[in-house]
Amino acid sequence: MAARECSIANALGVIGERWSLLALREVMLGRRRFAQIAANTGASRDILTARLRKLVEHGVLAKEQYELHPPRYEYVLTDAGRALQPILHQLMEWGDKYVTEGPAPTVWEHSCGTELHTETVCRHCGEPFGTGEMTLVRLGGVPR
Amino acid sequence: MAARECSIANALGVIGERWSLLALREVMLGRRRFAQIAANTGASRDILTARLRKLVEHGVLAKEQYELHPPRYEYVLTDAGRALQPILHQLMEWGDKYVTEGPAPTVWEHSCGTELHTETVCRHCGEPFGTGEMTLVRLGGVPR
Repeated sequence: MAARECSIANALGVIGERWSLLALREVMLGRRRFAQIAANTGASRDILTARLRKLVEHGVLAKEQYELHPPRYEYVLTDAGRALQPILHQLMEWGDKYVTEGPAPTVWEHSCGTELHTETVCRHCGEPFGTGEMTLVRLGGVPR
Repeated sequence: MAARECSIANALGVIGERWSLLALREVMLGRRRFAQIAANTGASRDILTARLRKLVEHGVLAKEQYELHPPRYEYVLTDAGRALQPILHQLMEWGDKYVTEGPAPTVWEHSCGTELHTETVCRHCGEPFGTGEMTLVRLGGVPR
């Protein structure tokens, strides 16, 4: 039996490695250079090089030259990379609540005046995810 | 230099492996038994056994006995596991948009009457994530 056709699996094929997501976190925090990303994640240079190359190949990060002589590059988010920001934030909040012991290590404030906590809602009706019924129309490419 | 203290990293320590997330997907779809999870993910028995054990140890899944003789178990979501459902849904939508070629393999309909697409909003003001300013109050346990 073949595994399901699945966009979660496909997404994990691109970003589903620990160091990939932690590298993305650093770029989102404005730490765009290899040495900064390596230091703040604790990834080895070899692994980080491979992960960053993959993220660039799949269009999640782009490499931009910021110095000509010697040539030096930094990593910036593409649209696909920016679209991961809310997902990483939610992963952080999940970790705060269910894994990390003690207070949340990282806290953001939103300009509405509160500590930023997020929720997932239906884009159409605005109700929180899990409110109402969800019906499978198609699963793994197979109509239900 | 030590890696940042970070709930994203902590979360990935529990669920940041491909087969863990795909196993969770199956349980969320109601495929709670080992053989179903193995078949639908394509994970090897050894790896899946280790991943499921870890998810149970960390309280993301619970093991429930559904047959006494012979003893048989199935996996159910805990509160921590249920809290991952919107995150996995968003990961799926990200994969649909940026990775999967062709139409979305899996489609859900919401009881509000539309194909379910989600967004992340601020729980306080309801504005979409990325609207307004986000200010770091504390980063990796260090006040800013």
